[in-house]
Amino acid sequence: MLAIKRVGLLVSERGYATASTFRAADTIVKKTERGNPKPDPNKLVFGATYSDHMLTIKHTNKAGWGKPVIEPLTDLKIHPGAKVLHYATELFEGMKAYRGDDGKIRLFRPDLNMKRMLSTAERSVLPTFDGNELLECIKKLVQVDAEWVPRSKSSTLYIRPTLIGTEPTLGVAAPSESLLFVVTGPVGPYFPTGFKPVSLLADTFHCRAFPGGMGAFKAGSNYGPTIYVNKLAQEQGCQQVLWLYGEKRYITEVGTMNVFMCIKNKKGGVELVTPPLNGLILPGVTRQSIIDLGRTWKDITVSERDITIDELLEAQQDNRLLEMFGAGTAAIVCPVERIVYEGKSYDLATMDKGAPITSRFHDEIVDIQFGRKPSKWTVDVA
Amino acid sequence: MLAIKRVGLLVSERGYATASTFRAADTIVKKTERGNPKPDPNKLVFGATYSDHMLTIKHTNKAGWGKPVIEPLTDLKIHPGAKVLHYATELFEGMKAYRGDDGKIRLFRPDLNMKRMLSTAERSVLPTFDGNELLECIKKLVQVDAEWVPRSKSSTLYIRPTLIGTEPTLGVAAPSESLLFVVTGPVGPYFPTGFKPVSLLADTFHCRAFPGGMGAFKAGSNYGPTIYVNKLAQEQGCQQVLWLYGEKRYITEVGTMNVFMCIKNKKGGVELVTPPLNGLILPGVTRQSIIDLGRTWKDITVSERDITIDELLEAQQDNRLLEMFGAGTAAIVCPVERIVYEGKSYDLATMDKGAPITSRFHDEIVDIQFGRKPSKWTVDVA
Repeated sequence: MLAIKRVGLLVSERGYATASTFRAADTIVKKTERGNPKPDPNKLVFGATYSDHMLTIKHTNKAGWGKPVIEPLTDLKIHPGAKVLHYATELFEGMKAYRGDDGKIRLFRPDLNMKRMLSTAERSVLPTFDGNELLECIKKLVQVDAEWVPRSKSSTLYIRPTLIGTEPTLGVAAPSESLLFVVTGPVGPYFPTGFKPVSLLADTFHCRAFPGGMGAFKAGSNYGPTIYVNKLAQEQGCQQVLWLYGEKRYITEVGTMNVFMCIKNKKGGVELVTPPLNGLILPGVTRQSIIDLGRTWKDITVSERDITIDELLEAQQDNRLLEMFGAGTAAIVCPVERIVYEGKSYDLATMDKGAPITSRFHDEIVDIQFGRKPSKWTVDVA
Repeated sequence: MLAIKRVGLLVSERGYATASTFRAADTIVKKTERGNPKPDPNKLVFGATYSDHMLTIKHTNKAGWGKPVIEPLTDLKIHPGAKVLHYATELFEGMKAYRGDDGKIRLFRPDLNMKRMLSTAERSVLPTFDGNELLECIKKLVQVDAEWVPRSKSSTLYIRPTLIGTEPTLGVAAPSESLLFVVTGPVGPYFPTGFKPVSLLADTFHCRAFPGGMGAFKAGSNYGPTIYVNKLAQEQGCQQVLWLYGEKRYITEVGTMNVFMCIKNKKGGVELVTPPLNGLILPGVTRQSIIDLGRTWKDITVSERDITIDELLEAQQDNRLLEMFGAGTAAIVCPVERIVYEGKSYDLATMDKGAPITSRFHDEIVDIQFGRKPSKWTVDVA
């Protein structure tokens, strides 16, 4: 086990009500007179199309939180000295609204996003708030732009809550002025024509997260530094990075996703392994859902435990690595078919039989998200 | 020696001309009709006051770099989906303009800032440019706002070049649209009434930088995560964090500064120790200048080498730790008088004799910056 000490108790672990918060009931709604045309749902590029409205909520240390405002999407006016542009005083969340066959719009486990957002805010010394209130504001925003939630069995409305430090002074310090905003936009299915497995570069130099760092938080500072490494992966014919940590080369994440490996153990059972929440791993909503679902299945054992690249490749050599996949809100699951490590290429068996375990997780989660299977994990929006 | 491998050759090491660049000769200057009143130079807070003008240069992958524009300082219009607000696709530099007793305005080793900015841009997959051209643009900006360069023996004009990714799409990828901007503002002396030494919390959990990360680059992602840790230091009665790395607890940096320790060695000589540029350390301009100056002194030896907290505290116990100080553009040098480590407080000897080595570095550097001592390190602006 990686010996990584815990940081002190964060607000999210104490429950997420805080002394100072905005209230969804105070929301001011200014609707646009004419919205933008909706794009062809079959031609959507992730994160490139935005709905007509956004939610903004200002915070100052002096006045606390202002009233939530839902207004037409527009450029933000940001002072060039704002801390967010210099010191990455910024965090975000990623979630989706799903329109079911019954026409209803639902969110999927949004309480987990609110909890993580507050945990990241506290670690980033950005202002905290009542997560239930933000969730109600987000519901209102989705209601205002309900026509932007695709009528589709697979397209969805992506929701991006963001919190930035806007105080226009250059000291490296907690901002006295901040802005919480939420934008949304329709996104197509990650795999429109069935799974398209990815290949990974297991990078032995670069590192996504480290003990005492930000790996467990959804902060902007975790993402910018990865772009260069992903470029190196692409130069080696891979799509994404398999992130390793430390001298023992523990497997941590895949690209911007959590990672799962289905390994036949030496007794013949199937173990689904994912790295534990040791401070290096983002507590993904899809990750947690796969763990929770997997624990109800009788044919696999779910383990949150450390696993090194050596153990993975040993299982691969012994034909015991059945499937490997990334997991995240965008793709739900993303099968892995190849790993490049220390100049060698390893072809994995993931797709040999059509990735049955990966597929089953995908289908069970999608059925819940689109309301085809009733679940306590969904929250009705409209 | 910390065994940290090097990342591939960055543009800064190949010389900083690139195929695509803007040209200072193309700069469009739009002066304000009436400037803001200049503040009292004795009441300046770092980074809170801005000069009248800013420099902006747009980049798109399609059109390349646009023309540099010097215009009145104004808010930037940034799409809420711009990558800089989500993924910390941002970097900056910190430099100063100094008005000498002769009235001339000078920059101090700006070539090192340009080199580091290009190195960080390449690591951040932000667009590169010809550093000489940006330097000429910065000179023009300082000339336009020359009245903002304090007439003072100690106040200066702080210069903040910044490069952000503005493409309004949510994919984690290199931005196809970026903005380079430079703002400036007058800053007072860091120590208006003589050195005010600081106390440090040697944090054993949090980490500023790690192998395979961004520690050697001036990227926003290195700074946001430190704000929380500095808050912890303040809660323990310290002003700043002494950043340690790894199980052996190597000393790396102090707050947002490089660190130097003057140690009497067992043979009686004085060694000035600073950690080497091993990938965890920002290549500071003041750091380099102290090393360069120190190597011309006959009474000390300068070592760029690893040093652990244990070695430091052993020297402290033996009364061989003469002085310790941080080094950076803002403070030049910042004496350290106390370290809190594992619940114990250690009073250092730094100020016992008035910090003679620290003071000598301070004075030699200031004399060069203000043109009192001729040097190849200064570049005339006007």
